[in-house]
Amino acid sequence: MQHTPIKGLFAAPFTPLHPDGSVNPEMIPVLVEKLIADGLTGAFICGSNGEGPNLTISERMAVAEAFVGAANGRLQIWVHVGHSSIAESRALMQHACEIGADAASAVAAFYFKPSSVDNLVDCMAQIASAAPQLPFYYYHIPMLTGVGMDMLRFLELAGQQIPNLQGIKYTANTIWEFQACLNHFGDRFNILYGFDEMLLPALGAGATAAIGSTYNFAAPLYLDVITNYEAGRMDAARKTMNMLIDMVRAFVKYPPIPAQKAIMHMLGVDVGGCRLPLVTLSQASYDALKSELEEIGFW
Amino acid sequence: MQHTPIKGLFAAPFTPLHPDGSVNPEMIPVLVEKLIADGLTGAFICGSNGEGPNLTISERMAVAEAFVGAANGRLQIWVHVGHSSIAESRALMQHACEIGADAASAVAAFYFKPSSVDNLVDCMAQIASAAPQLPFYYYHIPMLTGVGMDMLRFLELAGQQIPNLQGIKYTANTIWEFQACLNHFGDRFNILYGFDEMLLPALGAGATAAIGSTYNFAAPLYLDVITNYEAGRMDAARKTMNMLIDMVRAFVKYPPIPAQKAIMHMLGVDVGGCRLPLVTLSQASYDALKSELEEIGFW
Amino acid sequence: MQHTPIKGLFAAPFTPLHPDGSVNPEMIPVLVEKLIADGLTGAFICGSNGEGPNLTISERMAVAEAFVGAANGRLQIWVHVGHSSIAESRALMQHACEIGADAASAVAAFYFKPSSVDNLVDCMAQIASAAPQLPFYYYHIPMLTGVGMDMLRFLELAGQQIPNLQGIKYTANTIWEFQACLNHFGDRFNILYGFDEMLLPALGAGATAAIGSTYNFAAPLYLDVITNYEAGRMDAARKTMNMLIDMVRAFVKYPPIPAQKAIMHMLGVDVGGCRLPLVTLSQASYDALKSELEEIGFW
Amino acid sequence: MQHTPIKGLFAAPFTPLHPDGSVNPEMIPVLVEKLIADGLTGAFICGSNGEGPNLTISERMAVAEAFVGAANGRLQIWVHVGHSSIAESRALMQHACEIGADAASAVAAFYFKPSSVDNLVDCMAQIASAAPQLPFYYYHIPMLTGVGMDMLRFLELAGQQIPNLQGIKYTANTIWEFQACLNHFGDRFNILYGFDEMLLPALGAGATAAIGSTYNFAAPLYLDVITNYEAGRMDAARKTMNMLIDMVRAFVKYPPIPAQKAIMHMLGVDVGGCRLPLVTLSQASYDALKSELEEIGFW
Repeated sequence: MQHTPIKGLFAAPFTPLHPDGSVNPEMIPVLVEKLIADGLTGAFICGSNGEGPNLTISERMAVAEAFVGAANGRLQIWVHVGHSSIAESRALMQHACEIGADAASAVAAFYFKPSSVDNLVDCMAQIASAAPQLPFYYYHIPMLTGVGMDMLRFLELAGQQIPNLQGIKYTANTIWEFQACLNHFGDRFNILYGFDEMLLPALGAGATAAIGSTYNFAAPLYLDVITNYEAGRMDAARKTMNMLIDMVRAFVKYPPIPAQKAIMHMLGVDVGGCRLPLVTLSQASYDALKSELEEIGFW
Repeated sequence: MQHTPIKGLFAAPFTPLHPDGSVNPEMIPVLVEKLIADGLTGAFICGSNGEGPNLTISERMAVAEAFVGAANGRLQIWVHVGHSSIAESRALMQHACEIGADAASAVAAFYFKPSSVDNLVDCMAQIASAAPQLPFYYYHIPMLTGVGMDMLRFLELAGQQIPNLQGIKYTANTIWEFQACLNHFGDRFNILYGFDEMLLPALGAGATAAIGSTYNFAAPLYLDVITNYEAGRMDAARKTMNMLIDMVRAFVKYPPIPAQKAIMHMLGVDVGGCRLPLVTLSQASYDALKSELEEIGFW
Repeated sequence: MQHTPIKGLFAAPFTPLHPDGSVNPEMIPVLVEKLIADGLTGAFICGSNGEGPNLTISERMAVAEAFVGAANGRLQIWVHVGHSSIAESRALMQHACEIGADAASAVAAFYFKPSSVDNLVDCMAQIASAAPQLPFYYYHIPMLTGVGMDMLRFLELAGQQIPNLQGIKYTANTIWEFQACLNHFGDRFNILYGFDEMLLPALGAGATAAIGSTYNFAAPLYLDVITNYEAGRMDAARKTMNMLIDMVRAFVKYPPIPAQKAIMHMLGVDVGGCRLPLVTLSQASYDALKSELEEIGFW
Repeated sequence: MQHTPIKGLFAAPFTPLHPDGSVNPEMIPVLVEKLIADGLTGAFICGSNGEGPNLTISERMAVAEAFVGAANGRLQIWVHVGHSSIAESRALMQHACEIGADAASAVAAFYFKPSSVDNLVDCMAQIASAAPQLPFYYYHIPMLTGVGMDMLRFLELAGQQIPNLQGIKYTANTIWEFQACLNHFGDRFNILYGFDEMLLPALGAGATAAIGSTYNFAAPLYLDVITNYEAGRMDAARKTMNMLIDMVRAFVKYPPIPAQKAIMHMLGVDVGGCRLPLVTLSQASYDALKSELEEIGFW
C-alpha cells in the first residue's frame, strides 16, 4: 500500500449516550459538524475516549456507520477495531472497510497480552489482513493495555509483514522513541502523537499529526499552537500550550473521560454520561471543574 | 437466593480448537466424560484457561451450549461471562441462564478498570441482574485483570446489592484474605480457591472447593491430597502436593495455557493449539516438557 | 558450613526510639526479656520492622550490640545487614560477627536492583564473604525491594557459591515456591516463612520456623496455632488463626510499622514513634485501632 | 534564600573506580577538566550515574571533596546526598556545605517510600535543614525510586517549608508536568530536565538547564542542539538530536551505566567498571557497542 502522509489534528470523539446508557446516534452529526468547523483533519472513533471497549460489536458498527455517513468525505473517519478477541477485531475491520471508513486501528490484545514484538506483529497482521485494502494503524497505548514494546522494532517487522500498515497512533510519554520512529520511518509511515498535553514538545520532535481527546473541544487553540510553532514563534506557542496544560491538569483530577464529557456539556454539546466501569461526574465535580476552567481562562 | 454450599474440584477446561483455530465442539463431550470419570464436581468454562477473551460472543455461546449439553446434569457447568463490555457480559449471562448452566461468573472489566470496591460492585450488579435467577460468582484474578480490591469489603457490599451473588472464584496468593472471607462469609457464600499449586495451604485455611486448570488432567492426584488432608495425614498430603508443585514448575517455564494444552495432548486428549496472542508450544518445548514431567514422576 | 536446623518463631523487633527520634537503647533489654518470656527462638533485628534502612551504620551497630548483650545467649540474634551499598553491608556483616551475633541476613540491593538470579547470588556472595564463619540468610521480600527471583534457582546457585549460606527469610505470598524450597533444599537450608498472617498455610506447606513482626506482641497465640496444628487439631488452629488475621487486618489499615509500635504501647511497652518517611500514628488512629482490636477479642 | 537562575548543562559524572572496585580519586581532576573544556555549567555528583547508592558514606564524602577541589570554582559542583536513611543524608548535606559545594540534592527515600506529597516534603525538609545556607534540589526520578508525586503540589508546599529549596532535578518523561512547573514556578525555582534523549522537546517546553549522564561525553553535540534551537533552526537541532537519540538507543541495549563507562573508555577516559549489582560490560558487548556507535556516526 502506498504511503499517504497525514497532517493535522484528529479528534477521538466521545460516543454520545442517552441517559439510559444506550447509544445516541442523533448527536453524531452534531459532533461531526463541530469537528469540521473546528478545522480537524479526522476523527478516531470507538477508541478509548469513544468507550469502544464498553460497547457491543453491533453498537460499535452502528457508531462507525453513523460517523462515516455524517462525515460524507469531509472528515477522515478512522475506526478503532481493537478487542480482546482478534476474531471480533477482524469482523470490525471488515465492516469498517465495507462502510467506507478511511482507516482502521487496533490496540494490542489486553486480556492475554502479546509477549514479544514478534507476537504483537503476528496479532496485528491477523487483524489487518481482514481488509487488506484498508489502511491500518497500530494503536500504541501501554498505559492502558500494559503492552509496551519497542516501536522501531515493531515498524521494522510489521513493515515487512503487514502490507496495509500505514503507521502508529503513538500514545506514550517517550517522545524520544516517537522522534526515532519519525526519523527512521517517517517517509514510509505516519506516526501520530497521542498525548495532547505534550503536543508542543512532539512538534519539536517532528510531529506533523496528532490524535487526542481534547481536540474535540479545544482544537482551535491547539491549531494556534501549531501555527505559532511553524512560524518560529515559540514563546507564543508555549503561552497557549501553558494554558492548555492547565486545562488538562484541571480535568485529570477527575476520571478523565467523564470529565471531558462534562466539558462538552459545558460547551452546549450533550454527549451524555459514561458506561460502567466509567462513571458520570457528580454535579459538585461538574461545577468545580467549570469554575476552575474559568479561573485559568479556558472559557 | 439461598446459599448452596459447594464442595470439590472444578476444572477450567481448555477450549478445543481445530488446527485452523476454529472451535472444535466434537471434543467437548470427550472432555466432559473425562472430568466426570476423574471425580470433578464441575467445569468453569470460557474463563482464562478456556480462552474466553479470545473467542467471539457467538463462539462463547456455542461452547457453553456444548458443555451444558454434554454434561446433562452430571457435572456442574459454570459459564464465565466476563468481557470488557458489560453489555456483552449481560448477553452472555442471559444466554447461560437460558441454556440451563448452573452458574455464571465474571472477571472485572479489564480495559477500563473499576476504580473502587463500590464501582466494582456496581459493575458486577449490572452483569448479575441480567439473569437474577442464575447463581453468580465474582472472578477475582488481579494478576490478569490488574484489579485487586478488598474481597471482604466486596462481599459485604455485594451481598447487599446482588441478590444472586453466590461467592467468589478467588485466584490470588493472598491466602490470609481468602481465609478471612471463609471465616466471615463462609456460611453465606462459596469462596473457591483458584491456585492449584497452593491447594494444600488453602485447605489449611479452610477451603472446601477449588477451581483450576491442572484439575483438567491431574484431578485424581489433587483429590488424593484432599483425602489425606481430611484424614489428618499431612505428610502424605504434602508428599503428593510436592510432586504437583514440581509439575506446575515444569510447565510454567512455558506460556502456561499452551503448555497445558500440550499436556492434554500427551495424555491422548487433543484440544489443539491456542489463538493469538497465545501461541502453540514448539515441538522442542513439547518434548522437553514431556521429559521433565517424566523425570519428576508425573506420568 | 554445617546445616543446623532451626525451629520456632523469630520476632523482628521494632527499634525503640526516643521522642526526638534518637535510638533508645535502654528499652532493648526490656524487649529481649519479653521475647524470651513469650517463648521465641530468636530476634531478627534492624530489618524492615526494625527500621534498619532508616538508621545510620553506627546506629545499626549500636542496636546490634545492645541486642546481643541483652540476649546473652538466651535468644538467637540475627542481624540484618542489607544496604544499598554492598560495601556498607560488608562492614555491618563483619561487625555482627565480631560482636557474637548468631547470624546475618541481607535484602537485595534496592536502589540499583539485581537483574538476574546470578547477579543476585554474586551480590549476596560478596556480602556473606565478609564474615565467612557467620551463618548467612538471604532476605527475600520482593514487595519491598522489587526484586523477585526464582528462589529454587537461587538456592541451587548460592549453595555452590556461598559457603556460609544457611537459608532464606522468605517473605512472599507464593507458598508453593516456599514449599518447593523446603521440599528440595529443606535438608540443607532453613527456609523461614515471613508473613505472619499466613503462618497456618505455611505450616501445611511444611514450615518449621518463621520470622515476623507480630511475633513481638502475639507470639503465644501463634505458638498455640503451631501446637494445635502439630497435634492435628486443624479447627482449633484455624480458629486462633482467624482471630490473628482479623488483628492484622485491623492494623494494616494504618501504616503497618507505626501501627504495630502503637500496639506495643497499648501493651505497656513504649518503643516510641518512627523515623521519616514512616510516621507516628495519630491519637485518633491509636484509639480507633485499640477499639477495633478490643472488638475482635485480641486483648 | 534568593533565587539564582541556572542555565546550561550539568553532567552527572561516573565515579571512577580501580579494577578492585575502590574509588580512583586521581581520575576526578581529569573528568573535571574535560567537563570544563566541553562547556558544561556544572557536575551533579554521587547521583545514580555516580553510583552514589553503591558507595559508603565516607567514600561519598571523599568523592565530593575531590570534585570540589578539582573544580576550584570553575565548575559548579552539586552533591547528591540521597540515602535510605535521612540521618545519613543530613550528614552528607552538612559535609557538602562544609567543603564548599554549590548545592545539594536528594532523591526520595527508596526503601520505605514517602506515601504522599506532604510526607515527601517533610522528608526533604528534614534533609535540607541540615545545612540551611546550602541550595537544595529535590531529585525526582520515579523510574528508580518508585516515588511519583505531583511536582507542582510539591513545589507549592516545599516552597513554604524549605527555605533553601532552589528547585528540582526533574528526571521523568512527563514533559507537560515539567512545563507546568516552569510556567508556574520558573521565576522562583530552577527545574532542570533529566532525560538527555528528550532535551529538544524539553527546550520546546521552556527548559534552560539540564542534568544528564551523556553530557559527560557528548556535551558539545547537545550544546549544538541548544544553539540551533535558540536560533530557531529547528531542523538542524532535530538532525543532531536524531543522532544523539540513536546513540542512546545503542547503549540502552546494555545496562546503561556500565555501557556509558565503556563509552568513556572508548574516548580514552578510563573510569573503570561498576560495583555490584551493576556489572561491567563484556568485551564482546564493548566491541558491539563501539561498532554500532561508529555506524550511526557518533565518533
